[in-house]
Amino acid sequence: MSSPSFFPQDIIIKKRDGGALAKEEIEFFARGVVNGQFADYQATALLMAIFWRGMTAQEVAWLTDAMMRSGDVIDLRDLPGAKVDKHSTGGVGDKVSLILAPLAAACGVMVPMMSGRGLGHTGGTLDKLESIPGFRVMLDVPEFRAILQQVGMAMIGQTPKVVPADRKLYSLRDVTGTVECIPLICASIMSKKLAEGIDSLVLDVKFGKGAFMKKKDDALALARAMVAVGKAGGKPVRALLTAMNQPLGRCAGHTTEVIESIECLKGRGPADLMEVTYALTGHMLILGGAATDEADARAKMATAIANGSALQKFREMCVAQGGDPRVVDDYSLLPAAKQIRALAAPAGASGFVSAVDALKCGHAIMALGGGRAAVTDKVDHAVGLSDLIKIGERVEPGTRLCTLHANDEAKAARAEELIRAAITLSPEPPAPESLIQDLVA
Amino acid sequence: MSSPSFFPQDIIIKKRDGGALAKEEIEFFARGVVNGQFADYQATALLMAIFWRGMTAQEVAWLTDAMMRSGDVIDLRDLPGAKVDKHSTGGVGDKVSLILAPLAAACGVMVPMMSGRGLGHTGGTLDKLESIPGFRVMLDVPEFRAILQQVGMAMIGQTPKVVPADRKLYSLRDVTGTVECIPLICASIMSKKLAEGIDSLVLDVKFGKGAFMKKKDDALALARAMVAVGKAGGKPVRALLTAMNQPLGRCAGHTTEVIESIECLKGRGPADLMEVTYALTGHMLILGGAATDEADARAKMATAIANGSALQKFREMCVAQGGDPRVVDDYSLLPAAKQIRALAAPAGASGFVSAVDALKCGHAIMALGGGRAAVTDKVDHAVGLSDLIKIGERVEPGTRLCTLHANDEAKAARAEELIRAAITLSPEPPAPESLIQDLVA
Repeated sequence: MSSPSFFPQDIIIKKRDGGALAKEEIEFFARGVVNGQFADYQATALLMAIFWRGMTAQEVAWLTDAMMRSGDVIDLRDLPGAKVDKHSTGGVGDKVSLILAPLAAACGVMVPMMSGRGLGHTGGTLDKLESIPGFRVMLDVPEFRAILQQVGMAMIGQTPKVVPADRKLYSLRDVTGTVECIPLICASIMSKKLAEGIDSLVLDVKFGKGAFMKKKDDALALARAMVAVGKAGGKPVRALLTAMNQPLGRCAGHTTEVIESIECLKGRGPADLMEVTYALTGHMLILGGAATDEADARAKMATAIANGSALQKFREMCVAQGGDPRVVDDYSLLPAAKQIRALAAPAGASGFVSAVDALKCGHAIMALGGGRAAVTDKVDHAVGLSDLIKIGERVEPGTRLCTLHANDEAKAARAEELIRAAITLSPEPPAPESLIQDLVA
Repeated sequence: MSSPSFFPQDIIIKKRDGGALAKEEIEFFARGVVNGQFADYQATALLMAIFWRGMTAQEVAWLTDAMMRSGDVIDLRDLPGAKVDKHSTGGVGDKVSLILAPLAAACGVMVPMMSGRGLGHTGGTLDKLESIPGFRVMLDVPEFRAILQQVGMAMIGQTPKVVPADRKLYSLRDVTGTVECIPLICASIMSKKLAEGIDSLVLDVKFGKGAFMKKKDDALALARAMVAVGKAGGKPVRALLTAMNQPLGRCAGHTTEVIESIECLKGRGPADLMEVTYALTGHMLILGGAATDEADARAKMATAIANGSALQKFREMCVAQGGDPRVVDDYSLLPAAKQIRALAAPAGASGFVSAVDALKCGHAIMALGGGRAAVTDKVDHAVGLSDLIKIGERVEPGTRLCTLHANDEAKAARAEELIRAAITLSPEPPAPESLIQDLVA
């Protein structure tokens, strides 16, 4: 099929002057960044022009579609049932995927999840899964399909042939100040998710200090843009806006988050983490036709936790992806840090926790060696936090603020400093804030 | 000297968010585009951010200085007298440099002129000079200095070591929609001119249909920016705003413009061309201390034309730069086109010329093979226009509209079509418009 030819500079100038790009121009761009017809230095000028001028909903839908079609699009139509995935914009302690995927699969929705690695202060699902000895995340598409068919869920990394335009554009955006741009973020996320072969999608758009989006308005705009793109592509999308003003749950790191996730599947999860997990999974069940409404979904999820079928899915996934399923019952099989020590509130401390700065907690994980400053960095799976105190809890001298898992004394000292700085006390209990603040559908 | 190190993306983000860059950041950018520390794809993102957010006068001055110092800066302080140059933003039929440089030199001001080649619908001084058999424009700095000392003027191309940052940035701007940006245009022009070792500068900022700047306001803004940069660098700069609503003079092309320039030096130039030439050269004489005021300058220039000393400078330059000086007295030594034919007004034509579209005339030159669509194109020096009718002149059936110099019948036909389309008649003579509309100093 011959494709129309354009001059990149004409497309750049059109956007620079505030125009809306045509479908063919956007397709030329998405194809051109991969095949070289749109040079890197032209792509970045266009990205900055898009940052400046924005994009219409129609342009974003076209860009998403064109990026998706820049590589392989997985076709799962021959597999039975609805395929539903979840994507989170990422936050500190956000291990929802590890709980949600087996839970949804146990309730009868197929979950073909492709995730990313951690970068900066937020962790990545793939890295967390790799805490489990033997667990393989880099599977090819045939293996992915086989596991989906067998288990009803699979959690893998993006294959190199999926959405190459996004890989290219993201690497350019990262070094040219064009990351924080809603149309581009939307197209990046949605192109990857729609390439998975899903029927529908639930989004967790986080906002607040520990999230990529600091402001609720920006999160809302991104959520609306993604829901619109789903609609344009004929894939129902629901987005929850959730506050990330403290880490989710009480653990952050890799091993510690895996353990907390398994605890959740055993019915012993912390309230905030379960609230978000149930809300997101519930919408997945509804979209996938496995529940009629939220109450029905809640009942089914409660059953799947209570009867162990969700935990069983987690075990099955471990087996299918090469991981040791015994970790579910024996956490000592997971990597452990050399030093595990409690951080206690100092003498004179008194009051209620009014803030736990998620960004500082994320930096503490990085200080411990459990994060990546650059994509090529290796992460230490054993280090992290557990038993983290939550907003509203009472503090007296000696109250445990968290448990630190460290492999190096100097790093532990730096992390401790950050954790202490992250926690703010106030004399009165703070007004409770709801975690889930909006639904966009 | 160790230089501070920056991350390009931090600089991009600062400008993207509307901030003013620091001197060190701008220096890192200008140096980095040459040595690779600022990647091309980062440079273009910053260029687009500058296009969007603009630059303060201080930023432009720093950018100009940093670009100038990215390569060799010629030092002419040991040569006697004031060194003054002129720069024009370019227009159709603009051969002022060829008249002005010998005229100013004859009046006692040294003119170290570095020019460019033509691109698109406007011609370049270097290409015009190369119509003269043997004329060499690519001289190195020692030869440039020697000729300046001997003749008092020289007209050469930019040497590769002068302002490499501009060469790099211009090639990027050209393909990324970031050409029409006043701070960047200003820094590009001024860095090249200040690298010549001049003491002061006169600018011809053109506006109108045939000019790079279509609107007078944009031209005025550019003129002010350039004058401010000169002031910041301690080099007095004066800018004239001149209308380019019809070609300057009656000739356009290469050989035809050389002939018209020599005619001007012989005192037989067309009024509009001489008006602009005298105005610009006059300011050069004043800035260079060779005239006390405009009246004094006019008297000195009239003398230099009348006594043949300006023409003599042209001859001396030809000799010094390897060109055949006999062309001054024998135009048949210049390249001639195969077909030279008059274009006459058709039957029924009647009225006064109200417009001669300079852009269309420029396109006619290109159609004849006398222009460049790409920098690697070769130009045909022989083709062009002469005897072009001017705004306000009366037309009847058979009136000569212009003389076409062509080397190819099909090209001639296309050019004729463009010239005819360029000329508009009206029943009444149009209101006269002044050519020189403003002085910025």
